[in-house]
Amino acid sequence: MSHANPRPVIGFLTDFGLDGAAATCRAVMLSICRDAQIVDISHTVAKYAIGDGAFLLAAALPWFPVGVHVGVVDPGVGTERRAIGIRTARGDVLIGPDNGLLLPAADALGGATTARSLDNRELWLAGASATFHGRDIFSPVAAHLAAGNATFDDVGAPFEIDALVRIPRPEATAHPGSLQTSVTYVDSFGNARLAGGRDELAAAFGNPAAGTRFVIELDGGRSIAASFAPSFGYVAAGATLLYVDSAGNLALADNQGNLAGRIGLVVGASIGLRAG
Amino acid sequence: MSHANPRPVIGFLTDFGLDGAAATCRAVMLSICRDAQIVDISHTVAKYAIGDGAFLLAAALPWFPVGVHVGVVDPGVGTERRAIGIRTARGDVLIGPDNGLLLPAADALGGATTARSLDNRELWLAGASATFHGRDIFSPVAAHLAAGNATFDDVGAPFEIDALVRIPRPEATAHPGSLQTSVTYVDSFGNARLAGGRDELAAAFGNPAAGTRFVIELDGGRSIAASFAPSFGYVAAGATLLYVDSAGNLALADNQGNLAGRIGLVVGASIGLRAG
Amino acid sequence: MSHANPRPVIGFLTDFGLDGAAATCRAVMLSICRDAQIVDISHTVAKYAIGDGAFLLAAALPWFPVGVHVGVVDPGVGTERRAIGIRTARGDVLIGPDNGLLLPAADALGGATTARSLDNRELWLAGASATFHGRDIFSPVAAHLAAGNATFDDVGAPFEIDALVRIPRPEATAHPGSLQTSVTYVDSFGNARLAGGRDELAAAFGNPAAGTRFVIELDGGRSIAASFAPSFGYVAAGATLLYVDSAGNLALADNQGNLAGRIGLVVGASIGLRAG
Repeated sequence: MSHANPRPVIGFLTDFGLDGAAATCRAVMLSICRDAQIVDISHTVAKYAIGDGAFLLAAALPWFPVGVHVGVVDPGVGTERRAIGIRTARGDVLIGPDNGLLLPAADALGGATTARSLDNRELWLAGASATFHGRDIFSPVAAHLAAGNATFDDVGAPFEIDALVRIPRPEATAHPGSLQTSVTYVDSFGNARLAGGRDELAAAFGNPAAGTRFVIELDGGRSIAASFAPSFGYVAAGATLLYVDSAGNLALADNQGNLAGRIGLVVGASIGLRAG
Repeated sequence: MSHANPRPVIGFLTDFGLDGAAATCRAVMLSICRDAQIVDISHTVAKYAIGDGAFLLAAALPWFPVGVHVGVVDPGVGTERRAIGIRTARGDVLIGPDNGLLLPAADALGGATTARSLDNRELWLAGASATFHGRDIFSPVAAHLAAGNATFDDVGAPFEIDALVRIPRPEATAHPGSLQTSVTYVDSFGNARLAGGRDELAAAFGNPAAGTRFVIELDGGRSIAASFAPSFGYVAAGATLLYVDSAGNLALADNQGNLAGRIGLVVGASIGLRAG
Repeated sequence: MSHANPRPVIGFLTDFGLDGAAATCRAVMLSICRDAQIVDISHTVAKYAIGDGAFLLAAALPWFPVGVHVGVVDPGVGTERRAIGIRTARGDVLIGPDNGLLLPAADALGGATTARSLDNRELWLAGASATFHGRDIFSPVAAHLAAGNATFDDVGAPFEIDALVRIPRPEATAHPGSLQTSVTYVDSFGNARLAGGRDELAAAFGNPAAGTRFVIELDGGRSIAASFAPSFGYVAAGATLLYVDSAGNLALADNQGNLAGRIGLVVGASIGLRAG
């Protein structure tokens, strides 16, 4: 294979679980684009959890080669919600439902530059079902694009980027000596990813040194102690750390433990930080 | 790669779980057929659940390119049960144990046309174990076929298709105004797939309009209400719908919920439908 | 693709779970080595369970083509623990943290011949984080090796193999008429893999015939009965068998059941065998 035409990489995320639906989509994509390197980002996204899927796509896709990527967390499948493609500034095309799932990833890839409805049924499977657009619409459209059988202009009519459904983006609010934030994702280690990053931390606390103690204020008046640390092993096993995660966001973890499981953190939970 | 000789696609399903056994099989296949596109249909099939595996293979494989596919849910591994290959009318070869796992998929691929015992030990790994035929027999035989190192005639002696082990296929029984069926699979969303499809529904109820109300009679004298709908989002969140799934079969779901978990449905549960 | 230069196969094991971190590593590897066949050995290794990861790598990798393989179970990420590459006698390179995870696999691949620190930052991603060396160090180094962009000499300075961190290797002790061993891994079927193999069994009991009865002595003075059998289906459904597993090690299982779940076996549990 020449360097001028490397094998296309397709990132693929769904809430379909591990019992065959995602594999069926993969088979459809390979039927159209046999050389694709399809990367399963996750298929165990919590069912219907558009926000979780959006978080994971936005975290993963910047590490992918430019490509066509598919996301399907789609409780509105078969209803009037739009099937869309979004072109990003980086050159990717994101394919999926218009329910807020794709836009944070587009932002992470330089921003959305064009949005199109997937109206062109010539790029769908024949006889598309009402309940499995992952198989019947999103996968074949993505694979035709990845294979070079069609261009993004071919997928359907463009529409205003401002008309894309956008889910609210959690923000951190810094005050001198305190930072108000919230849980944006709980990862499989039980680490709680938070809104805001190094800038917000600095706005509230200057640039805290490793080992700086914080009080973490939780919903319901509870609080726990944490140390600011560059990585997990800088605190004792079982101790809690505040850190800047590998995407540059604030996060809380128990070293070698499961913080979210231990104290019951879920997405959206309010988190206050103050000097300890 | 020329269009005349595209990369082979191998569908692969087991109940091996996610802790390395399926990957070991994949490594064996790639050792023999380096360019294969191996698609993991599922490896989290309920342990020993031949019926679940059969359902998933039959649902997925029609969406695959014609190829060599491997299924291993094999409580009888190492005993006298046959290791087999089945040629389908579509041209696929299905590889696995002769316990009923493969035959529904063969039916879905146009029917079984030839069955062979995997007697030819030249296509096995040397020193095959008694407990891991997935690694030692099924994977290498499949990979040799996919790579074109051997033809189906080479795998072993043919035998009568009627001698293949077949698991009973659940059927729906339509009467005017009622349909008796059963749960054939519970998917990861908790949706209950049912025996019978649009034809059986029509035989019992004519062609019900979207929104038609049904009473769903469950084991133990319980019943729930459901609306016939083209897709999930046509009923309120948490409400139950009767729908025709993406394989053409009847199914029950809670919109954005988990019906089977909520009411305790399992494979084989009796389901009666009558007008609500 | 010529036979002289087949697509590289990269085995990949982590405790990252299924929510995107492993896929991000895969994307990094494909960005550098587009044609790689990356095989996910497992990403659901119990969190921080270096011993489980070591068991699975050592069990799986001998079935892989010679290649570059990556293992990441790394509670010490970002601390002073070394990032390493190990060359094996078979020709593989194993990439990961120096915490004992890789060495049993190296032993299974003929033994470690060279160890190197991954000091060469030109092979890392730019701006490596302190918490995600899988993405930032291990994946790019492995992919550069797999792609032929670098040789093993390029990854960093060599050091003494004896300086590698090694986790204790459980052993079986045979006496005439009894064998003392322990659980080395509990697989997804609930089968308990044990230290020792056919040799230790023979040293204690001669060569027991199929059907020979054993008493299995567990922690806490409990015991259960088991039959020695070549495979699961040689005992009744639900009955316990002692067998030699597909890696040549002793193991205990319930036919079509989950022994470890039923009687509460965990890694490290003491197991005594005596004639029944």
